[in-house]
Amino acid sequence: MVDFLKKLKFNKDGTIPAIIQDFQTNEVLMLGYMNEHSLLKTILMEKVHFWSRSRGKLWLKGERSGHFQTVQEIYFDCDADALLLKVKQRGGACHKGYRSCFYRRFTKDRKTEIAGEKIFNPEKAYNKDA
Amino acid sequence: MVDFLKKLKFNKDGTIPAIIQDFQTNEVLMLGYMNEHSLLKTILMEKVHFWSRSRGKLWLKGERSGHFQTVQEIYFDCDADALLLKVKQRGGACHKGYRSCFYRRFTKDRKTEIAGEKIFNPEKAYNKDA
Repeated sequence: MVDFLKKLKFNKDGTIPAIIQDFQTNEVLMLGYMNEHSLLKTILMEKVHFWSRSRGKLWLKGERSGHFQTVQEIYFDCDADALLLKVKQRGGACHKGYRSCFYRRFTKDRKTEIAGEKIFNPEKAYNKDA
Repeated sequence: MVDFLKKLKFNKDGTIPAIIQDFQTNEVLMLGYMNEHSLLKTILMEKVHFWSRSRGKLWLKGERSGHFQTVQEIYFDCDADALLLKVKQRGGACHKGYRSCFYRRFTKDRKTEIAGEKIFNPEKAYNKDA
């Protein structure tokens, strides 16, 4: 494991991008960032943890919504500066209510369109105590 | 199109990460970085262009190997700070000779293993004039 961590090249801010993919359908669910701490937690707890660059804190994916990502496999790329995690996604990955964060598509006629389907109500999922 | 570009949030260095995915199998092939210039070229020429952070230059994927990536669809995520491009991959995406750059896996018993299959000889693909 030490070898694996030694191989990885983190960005100057200590993070590495992590692509999250559905292990069954291969749908890309999101892109997040991990630092070494969140990667260790991800490996040991088998639930995806990110480093939130905007909030400056460790972030267990699903901690508020319950939409956890259970790790099935962890890959790293030829340059060792990107991760790919195949996961079992509970609910939806996107805080806007979609299965994937990549729910918008740029079309050939130069427009944007919604390509994904809304599968939950984000207001309910993220404001349970409200 | 202007709206699409205006929506996107590039990093401080002017780049945005772009996940490249096989449009048929949904295999994730690589993660690269684009700046606005390379994204415009990608859209207009329908071939993936990156901004090489290490070489500091525009990079048409496949320019040396012939392993071009023809764009099928372009998605962007909820935070508009990551792209997902579904492509038709000629040959392999990885300069090491694999179909995907994510050819190494971190195993449950804390080792790393080769998970991908080598599909071409990188020495031949990248040194045609040698």
